[in-house]
Amino acid sequence: MTGRVYLDYASTAPVLPEVLQAMLPYFSEVYGNPLLIHEWGDQVRQAIEEARARTAALIGASRPEEIFFTSCGTESNNMAVKGIALGRQDRGKHIIISAIEHFSVLHAARTLQKSGFEVTIVPVDRNGTVNPDDVVKNLRKDTVLVSIMHANGEVGTVQPIQEISKKVKEAGVLFHTDAVASAGILPINVAELGVDALTMAANPFYGPKGAGALWVRRGVRLLPLMDGGVQEDGRRPGTENVPAIVGMGKAAEIAKKEMAGRVVRLTALRDRLIQGVLDKIPYTILTGHPTQRLPNHTSFCIEFIEGEAMLMLLSSQGVAVSSGSACTSRALKASHVLIAMGLSHEIAQGSLMCTVGLNTTGTDIDYVIEILPPIINRLREMSPLWARHLKQGKGE
Amino acid sequence: MTGRVYLDYASTAPVLPEVLQAMLPYFSEVYGNPLLIHEWGDQVRQAIEEARARTAALIGASRPEEIFFTSCGTESNNMAVKGIALGRQDRGKHIIISAIEHFSVLHAARTLQKSGFEVTIVPVDRNGTVNPDDVVKNLRKDTVLVSIMHANGEVGTVQPIQEISKKVKEAGVLFHTDAVASAGILPINVAELGVDALTMAANPFYGPKGAGALWVRRGVRLLPLMDGGVQEDGRRPGTENVPAIVGMGKAAEIAKKEMAGRVVRLTALRDRLIQGVLDKIPYTILTGHPTQRLPNHTSFCIEFIEGEAMLMLLSSQGVAVSSGSACTSRALKASHVLIAMGLSHEIAQGSLMCTVGLNTTGTDIDYVIEILPPIINRLREMSPLWARHLKQGKGE
Repeated sequence: MTGRVYLDYASTAPVLPEVLQAMLPYFSEVYGNPLLIHEWGDQVRQAIEEARARTAALIGASRPEEIFFTSCGTESNNMAVKGIALGRQDRGKHIIISAIEHFSVLHAARTLQKSGFEVTIVPVDRNGTVNPDDVVKNLRKDTVLVSIMHANGEVGTVQPIQEISKKVKEAGVLFHTDAVASAGILPINVAELGVDALTMAANPFYGPKGAGALWVRRGVRLLPLMDGGVQEDGRRPGTENVPAIVGMGKAAEIAKKEMAGRVVRLTALRDRLIQGVLDKIPYTILTGHPTQRLPNHTSFCIEFIEGEAMLMLLSSQGVAVSSGSACTSRALKASHVLIAMGLSHEIAQGSLMCTVGLNTTGTDIDYVIEILPPIINRLREMSPLWARHLKQGKGE
Repeated sequence: MTGRVYLDYASTAPVLPEVLQAMLPYFSEVYGNPLLIHEWGDQVRQAIEEARARTAALIGASRPEEIFFTSCGTESNNMAVKGIALGRQDRGKHIIISAIEHFSVLHAARTLQKSGFEVTIVPVDRNGTVNPDDVVKNLRKDTVLVSIMHANGEVGTVQPIQEISKKVKEAGVLFHTDAVASAGILPINVAELGVDALTMAANPFYGPKGAGALWVRRGVRLLPLMDGGVQEDGRRPGTENVPAIVGMGKAAEIAKKEMAGRVVRLTALRDRLIQGVLDKIPYTILTGHPTQRLPNHTSFCIEFIEGEAMLMLLSSQGVAVSSGSACTSRALKASHVLIAMGLSHEIAQGSLMCTVGLNTTGTDIDYVIEILPPIINRLREMSPLWARHLKQGKGE
């Protein structure tokens, strides 16, 4: 393999050919408005409901009508956090989230603060894991919602959601989980997880961009984020993005069918990459949990280098990787996730995230393991921190 | 023409083949995240910025960076009305809208009421036109926003926005217009309209569903509807729906180029349909303005019949039309637009909306004019209202 190696599947993944095929008729051929009663509308309505059933099946939801289609994971998270909290504010105005939530949860919580909500942010340990006891001890009489992500897209850590939700539910508090990074990647069952609402997005499992969903258990009150028409039971108005919805359904169907095989294959690639990087590059740590992590996910902090420069050098050799969350990489700030895990700003600078996917081969992995060490060496040679480190006699 | 005649372009339109072609590479081939610095991301970033420039050009906006892409018109309207009003609430908490706004504006205003805003709803005349004086006389010291739609999707009336905005601007109040029904259909220039924010959606001008935009004049403060990452300058976070954005840009480019020809052609079809329906069906009125209306738009109230039944009979003969707003037709309530125009609930029941588009032919129009009268006769024969009408000696 020389040239193009894409190892940034968690940021954005290609749409599967079968998914695109399923979507195509809904752009220019079958375009009726599903709210209308002519036959054009009927066909579209059926396609949407089929997609809803498939999306529900992917997360083990027994009632398709509990799935509400949205435009993305960010929208679903905003809907869930604001919609559930505001819908229950007569019972209390306290919510709990974790320190490593996606900005769409963190900042939604901050917006709720402006409406008088109190927000408790529970910490994570060095592996990025939330301690269930930290959630429990912060539950209050006026707590109305706990939102803790299923898996973190930046460091790959999968949270012990089942353990946390059990205690949260015992306290009569609702539980939302952001499963954008894990839905369609890991087997998920909302009943087993014990959650009341779950955010997902189609793109991570090879569905289209612009397609997200929020699963909300029947009976949970949810104020809509947007006002408008009657679509999605009034909870998400706006003309349905039919091709995107159909694509999400198709991708969900395929992900469910191929789940077990994908997990095995991706885990092997993941572990080969982790091993290679840790073996070949000194002063490198694996970030996130060593075992409780997404099967497609590797993330590291490489000391004495600056991540942005590393990405550019890798890009010049045809390798696409990422340096933290896709939503923040241009902000050039140290990742809030890495900082919350106790890493220093200096170390967090050297963040490297490589995520594998269906088109990734062992050759791709080997290529990256081969070209990465000289790149790192070159960057370190230019680094004053590395020079200082060598001077202090701690070098190799 | 026998069989399938689609006259519901205002509800949803097919995507142009050239538009779909432009979108296709961005599903499975060019899929980098535009926030990332590798070459995959670069390509996508360029495509988005090109689409932004094309979308800006369609509405005569000189600064592409004033265009924010969203998932639909409903989202753009929510962003504009809530975002501008909440962003200016330190100056005052009064807004003005018209009685015939889309639900995404009407209900967004209602939501603002819960935050202490006062909302003045100005009436429309029998043609669905807002009298600029009604807006002016309701302007107050604490008015922070006026939102009046450019054209109404249900009755086709185009508002005298320029005249209204002039006076609103003189009072130092911001002006938003919902141009979902008109952008890409009529020539629009935001400078000439004199507005500060304008909502548009791609689908009405043969772009994809799931693609909308909000144009906001530079310097206007806008609180985001969703919290999250840094996309769209932080005003609309969430991974960009790249194919949809590219499709919107392409559709905008084509609409601008073909605008003049489309208007002439559609206007001729529209007028042929209006004339035919009014000639052939007694007790029928044209709803909306007779001349200041969208070139693709016809709408009627047919007395002594029930619109839903008419739609089903037309559908059984292969004709797709609509009976009012696409977002409400299943709600089976009389249209708030027709009621605001002073029509009775009884007459509003017989609402028929036929909207023409690029694939509509004169033969399609003639077919509808031919099959409609016997359908109406059949429905009237079953109507107790018609029987009473005949009895009263007012029949033919």
